Amino acid sequence: MNLLITGFEPFGGEKINPSQEVIENLPEHWKGLCLHTKLLPVVYDRAENVLFSYLDHLAPQAVLCLGVAAGRASLTLERIAVNIDDADLPDNEGALRQGSLIDRNGPAAYFSTLPLERIRKRLQDHALPSSFSLSAGGFLCNHVFYCLMKRAAENASFLPAGFIHLPALPAQAVFKPDLPSLPLSLQIEGVLCAAEVIGESLL
Amino acid sequence: MNLLITGFEPFGGEKINPSQEVIENLPEHWKGLCLHTKLLPVVYDRAENVLFSYLDHLAPQAVLCLGVAAGRASLTLERIAVNIDDADLPDNEGALRQGSLIDRNGPAAYFSTLPLERIRKRLQDHALPSSFSLSAGGFLCNHVFYCLMKRAAENASFLPAGFIHLPALPAQAVFKPDLPSLPLSLQIEGVLCAAEVIGESLL
Amino acid sequence: MNLLITGFEPFGGEKINPSQEVIENLPEHWKGLCLHTKLLPVVYDRAENVLFSYLDHLAPQAVLCLGVAAGRASLTLERIAVNIDDADLPDNEGALRQGSLIDRNGPAAYFSTLPLERIRKRLQDHALPSSFSLSAGGFLCNHVFYCLMKRAAENASFLPAGFIHLPALPAQAVFKPDLPSLPLSLQIEGVLCAAEVIGESLL
Amino acid sequence: MNLLITGFEPFGGEKINPSQEVIENLPEHWKGLCLHTKLLPVVYDRAENVLFSYLDHLAPQAVLCLGVAAGRASLTLERIAVNIDDADLPDNEGALRQGSLIDRNGPAAYFSTLPLERIRKRLQDHALPSSFSLSAGGFLCNHVFYCLMKRAAENASFLPAGFIHLPALPAQAVFKPDLPSLPLSLQIEGVLCAAEVIGESLL
Repeated sequence: MNLLITGFEPFGGEKINPSQEVIENLPEHWKGLCLHTKLLPVVYDRAENVLFSYLDHLAPQAVLCLGVAAGRASLTLERIAVNIDDADLPDNEGALRQGSLIDRNGPAAYFSTLPLERIRKRLQDHALPSSFSLSAGGFLCNHVFYCLMKRAAENASFLPAGFIHLPALPAQAVFKPDLPSLPLSLQIEGVLCAAEVIGESLL
Repeated sequence: MNLLITGFEPFGGEKINPSQEVIENLPEHWKGLCLHTKLLPVVYDRAENVLFSYLDHLAPQAVLCLGVAAGRASLTLERIAVNIDDADLPDNEGALRQGSLIDRNGPAAYFSTLPLERIRKRLQDHALPSSFSLSAGGFLCNHVFYCLMKRAAENASFLPAGFIHLPALPAQAVFKPDLPSLPLSLQIEGVLCAAEVIGESLL
Repeated sequence: MNLLITGFEPFGGEKINPSQEVIENLPEHWKGLCLHTKLLPVVYDRAENVLFSYLDHLAPQAVLCLGVAAGRASLTLERIAVNIDDADLPDNEGALRQGSLIDRNGPAAYFSTLPLERIRKRLQDHALPSSFSLSAGGFLCNHVFYCLMKRAAENASFLPAGFIHLPALPAQAVFKPDLPSLPLSLQIEGVLCAAEVIGESLL
Repeated sequence: MNLLITGFEPFGGEKINPSQEVIENLPEHWKGLCLHTKLLPVVYDRAENVLFSYLDHLAPQAVLCLGVAAGRASLTLERIAVNIDDADLPDNEGALRQGSLIDRNGPAAYFSTLPLERIRKRLQDHALPSSFSLSAGGFLCNHVFYCLMKRAAENASFLPAGFIHLPALPAQAVFKPDLPSLPLSLQIEGVLCAAEVIGESLL
């Protein structure tokens, strides 16, 4: 069983991205799953193609995309990807998108197909702060999430796929004392909880 | 031209709801529009039918639903209604819904069909704080918004319809000093800005 | 009876300062008081002297200094001025002070000598959002407040004196939708409530 | 060299208090210091006497009091203790104090006598989120801090003494996903940084 787990490169002036740190520190195998980790660019024009090339190449049984939501204090399980790019921040190649559709012919939104309730329960069992979220924002995280779910919807068989937002890391908060953070070890533990539940759902 | 504007009754222990205060203080006529204002119950099981009875009865040319988002500091123009009830708070008849679909056969989401960009521009021209929002939450506001957009989608002709979230009123913040608020006069001015732009879009 | 009410010029890239707008729009007389309004520079090196020249010139029976606390949602009644300049922002002449004493020989702090409890009660009677605050920050507001209270403490007779922080104005939140604001009319009403109670306390 | 480090019992409906968890998990010796850890009650009427009995008994060379500030995201180094009890929450024996002096004959405030700048630098070197704070609140933390500093001021020789506020623990955020937290290991690391710098200052 192959689980593709993606992270993003840093953006917005930050030198690190917790989602990159997490994927670079995951084990290759976990509870019978092969974890394939890949990095995505924070670029509207390229992220989709890079994601799709990984999907084509690996043909994973499930996909978990990760990104950072600086300002959030817990691991947030995204319920829904919306068909809109809408952010105040330009991407890493300077593209600013405000209010434009991701897919002119696509539906307004797709729901995550991950077992979110069971993932949340597992995170709580591990005493990890988590929550459901009804918005993955309007930047690259939601963009990739929407593209992923479009692809999953077109898949011949059911593909568990979805998105989890991570908080900042303590190192990012050293000079931003109001920024909530969660250390890498707990972020990794949380992602492994999710992977475990996804793996169980595939049996 | 008839514009239906709805508000909600109070909920969650509050004695007032800014959206009710606003609709009870709007003029009957505004820039060539007839403003028909109606109150909706904060009850999952009844809100849809009450809304639909108003729509059947009035057959308005456009619909603007209003609700309160305590904690937000500006008028927020909701871009999208999602097919999910998911709230920590029970409705006014005690029903708690967490993670359940609104319409088992409906799409994951509908976009607002109001001219949101022009409304935002008009609000800025009036020096009123506003923003776009990608989530109307998971309580009655989003519930009614989704039902409204489902109905609009089924309409024979295009029906401009959507949702605006209002901040709390100063009176609600007297004993909650951290709660952002905006006085009724500015909230009414903002809703009239929106009505005006909606009216222009109907010409 | 003369009440001196001061405000500050804008700072930190803002074009307006609510405290300046308030003092420029107060009546000259209010409930038997003469309201003398003066503007202070946002400059550590000059603010004290400017304040003291007004005090020398007017010999007021009471003093109320006003400033803005962007991010706060209510009128905040400052209880205490501390003997420290400590801010991340430079003043309007570029001086940055972090952790330096205001008065090398002064006490660590002075309490406000305004009737704060009665002012808060009056604000609540007017349905205006308010709160007590235990910190006026480490920038010019606290600086002037400390200098004022040092002067009041040295005064031969008791001098009611203190500081109230004002929220941002709605116009400042037009492009900062998360910034809480309160319109000028309510800010003025709040300051007149305070003036009224101060006046009553002088009888 | 003896360093007294105190923590508080839980309050406000919480089952744990990070400051208690920290003191119960500190080593007895650290970089040449003996760490003496003691628990304080969250009771206005008793906290001072309990603190003073420890001071009398141990005659420490320095004192560091710890408490929790739920909602803050970093370790906050308190600069100043103010002579006021002023909180919305009753203490663990039901006493509510709002606006009352701690010491009728005491000064308005005392500054911390810990080497806060050096402590902050050490925390930054360890990549730990920290900040200075100009208010320790109006509840038991500030109360004990004020009593401590009064005692230090009365001491024959200089006594380094002060207060650090800790964030919540992740376990406290499991069902409060908006609550910032920092895990116990990092909180302990931060307190040991502070102890280390205090120890160096005693040499």
